Amino acid sequence: MLDEKSIIYLDHAATSWPKPPEVGKAMLNTLDGPAANPGRGNYGMALQAGRVLFKARTKLAKLFNVSNPNDIVFTSNTTTALNLAIKGYLKPGDHVIATMIEHNSVRRPLEFLKRTQGVMVDYVAVNAQGEVDLDEVRDAFRPQTRMLVCSHSSNLLGSILPIEDLGQIAHQHDAVFLVDAAQTAGVFPIDVQQMGIDLLAFPGHKGLLGPQGTGGLYIASKLDLEPLLHGGTGSQSEELEQPSVRPDRYEAGTANTVGIAGLAAGVDVILKQGVSNIYAREWQLTQVLIEGLKDIQGVTLLGPNLGKPRTGIVSFNLIGRDAAEIAFLLDREFSIAVRAGYHCTPLGHQSAGTSEGGAVRASVGYDTTIEEVRSLVSAIRLLAN
Amino acid sequence: MLDEKSIIYLDHAATSWPKPPEVGKAMLNTLDGPAANPGRGNYGMALQAGRVLFKARTKLAKLFNVSNPNDIVFTSNTTTALNLAIKGYLKPGDHVIATMIEHNSVRRPLEFLKRTQGVMVDYVAVNAQGEVDLDEVRDAFRPQTRMLVCSHSSNLLGSILPIEDLGQIAHQHDAVFLVDAAQTAGVFPIDVQQMGIDLLAFPGHKGLLGPQGTGGLYIASKLDLEPLLHGGTGSQSEELEQPSVRPDRYEAGTANTVGIAGLAAGVDVILKQGVSNIYAREWQLTQVLIEGLKDIQGVTLLGPNLGKPRTGIVSFNLIGRDAAEIAFLLDREFSIAVRAGYHCTPLGHQSAGTSEGGAVRASVGYDTTIEEVRSLVSAIRLLAN
Repeated sequence: MLDEKSIIYLDHAATSWPKPPEVGKAMLNTLDGPAANPGRGNYGMALQAGRVLFKARTKLAKLFNVSNPNDIVFTSNTTTALNLAIKGYLKPGDHVIATMIEHNSVRRPLEFLKRTQGVMVDYVAVNAQGEVDLDEVRDAFRPQTRMLVCSHSSNLLGSILPIEDLGQIAHQHDAVFLVDAAQTAGVFPIDVQQMGIDLLAFPGHKGLLGPQGTGGLYIASKLDLEPLLHGGTGSQSEELEQPSVRPDRYEAGTANTVGIAGLAAGVDVILKQGVSNIYAREWQLTQVLIEGLKDIQGVTLLGPNLGKPRTGIVSFNLIGRDAAEIAFLLDREFSIAVRAGYHCTPLGHQSAGTSEGGAVRASVGYDTTIEEVRSLVSAIRLLAN
Repeated sequence: MLDEKSIIYLDHAATSWPKPPEVGKAMLNTLDGPAANPGRGNYGMALQAGRVLFKARTKLAKLFNVSNPNDIVFTSNTTTALNLAIKGYLKPGDHVIATMIEHNSVRRPLEFLKRTQGVMVDYVAVNAQGEVDLDEVRDAFRPQTRMLVCSHSSNLLGSILPIEDLGQIAHQHDAVFLVDAAQTAGVFPIDVQQMGIDLLAFPGHKGLLGPQGTGGLYIASKLDLEPLLHGGTGSQSEELEQPSVRPDRYEAGTANTVGIAGLAAGVDVILKQGVSNIYAREWQLTQVLIEGLKDIQGVTLLGPNLGKPRTGIVSFNLIGRDAAEIAFLLDREFSIAVRAGYHCTPLGHQSAGTSEGGAVRASVGYDTTIEEVRSLVSAIRLLAN
């Protein structure tokens, strides 16, 4: 067992830690309490398990301004949500536009469809600050374009894409708009209606403060996707095909009731604090971090410049030093947890000029303190000498 | 919050409840302790999270006699494991043999491939006791047959299929053998080597006593499946395709580390008690239940006769009464939780002659007592009058 207090945890972009105490409590209550199989029984416990799921859906709907909570389906992580959105919507011969900052959870499903179904893919360039040129996005559309997909925030650079503009462009071209909110759900305001988001994939265990094993996909009512999973739903069990009713259609098999109860508790914390406040606080911490790092000789910072919007991610390198070595030393000598190496985004690294060796990524979270950020700066200063 | 002591829980075939206290403890320890993102960091916490997964794999490998723990991949439930096995192995034009007791988690993926890829499917008949005729299975093979898939135990009838014989038949015909262990993992001995099982799909939250949101698939080393999910794995992140190394190839996205820690704790309980002992104990309880029910006027029992092997499932009907009504009354008047209605197995109901109205299903578990079983018998006796 680790001593929580002794670790400076700056890897919130991978998973938030520690979770608020409410999360574990909600999970244990559900495990010991009404965690019978949701939707598979006529008795009180099974009904209560179904209510756990519905409550979580309702809170998420509030957070993302979704009108009908049943348009939110649970998945075991963002990757599964993105696979459902991409494979469930695109058909052979379709064209899809993505960006060069996409995570492998977007790129690999796209490349799979390209290889097996002749789906055509274009990746719009991103500059070293992680920005896209909207005109280049517009120019990428073709008559066969049926989807625009992008990361809301780069998991390497922390840059934030202009989602509302991109949503408008997608709809002007009759394409659906899929957003990968892996780095923004719970830490940057998301309004699917105002932003024109048709499909929103989100993790439960990062900014939403829930446990690993949770995530979901918002699917606009007007869309019908081919389910990723076929199987029992507890409803219309005599039919050969998946039922059409939501969320059942996309949630075959037993749900992660316990994990989803934890996720709901995490979302409660977010709703109470307010996403805008969380964003402002984390942004301030990144500015302190960048201010501290930029004056250290040999440090190269990636992503948006000081003063620009960004999520809690600050990636950097120390000239002549291996990123993995830096992370190892931060862990061993300073008890600071950061992530190093490649971040599942090869084109992102290409854009940032870090295809060789990757980068060190520090990412702050809801409970990161300014002292912790300063400790990282001091450690890097020592390592740079 | 429900009062645990006041409920007689006889729906273990849907999910086991309550879980052994070790399960919740292991989950909370992992949530508060080393639950960083497994395989995504070079720091101690991320490595420790990776060890949580490996430990669970090792215990499961021991339970199922799997030589290489990395041949076990985690999924969020049995349905996902079955979708991976079926969609990942079968190709257009293939023929597959299943039985009439399959759950919708087998039947719907098969019907999906039939509809979209021209996969051919035959369902071998099952008699009212839930038995298959091995000659009928042999006769169903064609030159294009590439898979035999069957439920180890019917989730409606409790009958146990002769897996070792079926495995031999599959291999004599050069087909792979996929077993759905939803009702047997943890409650009936499974040895993938001795039984000739190539693919074993199992739930974490039923007989294995783990939390919902867990499950897995054993994939024989010789097989290469197309992954169900494409995305980041933390390994070979510069490649366009999923890495070939196991388990990464089949586990894109962040794992349910906390849930899997709970599953490992559940498997520990099983390994300590011994699966054969658990089976013997649960079988004894079913015999007491059948003995008690068979003499009540109006009760029709489904599945194997008294004295025959079966898992902890006993389904029945009361003549002239709706199954759902019986379950409702058991819950409200007697605090007994059972499942009623259809059990996601339309062909199974057809075999049992219960396509109209379904059936009441009682299922015992690792902590069910003989007094609880007798309470159900008394309640049914009262309801039958």
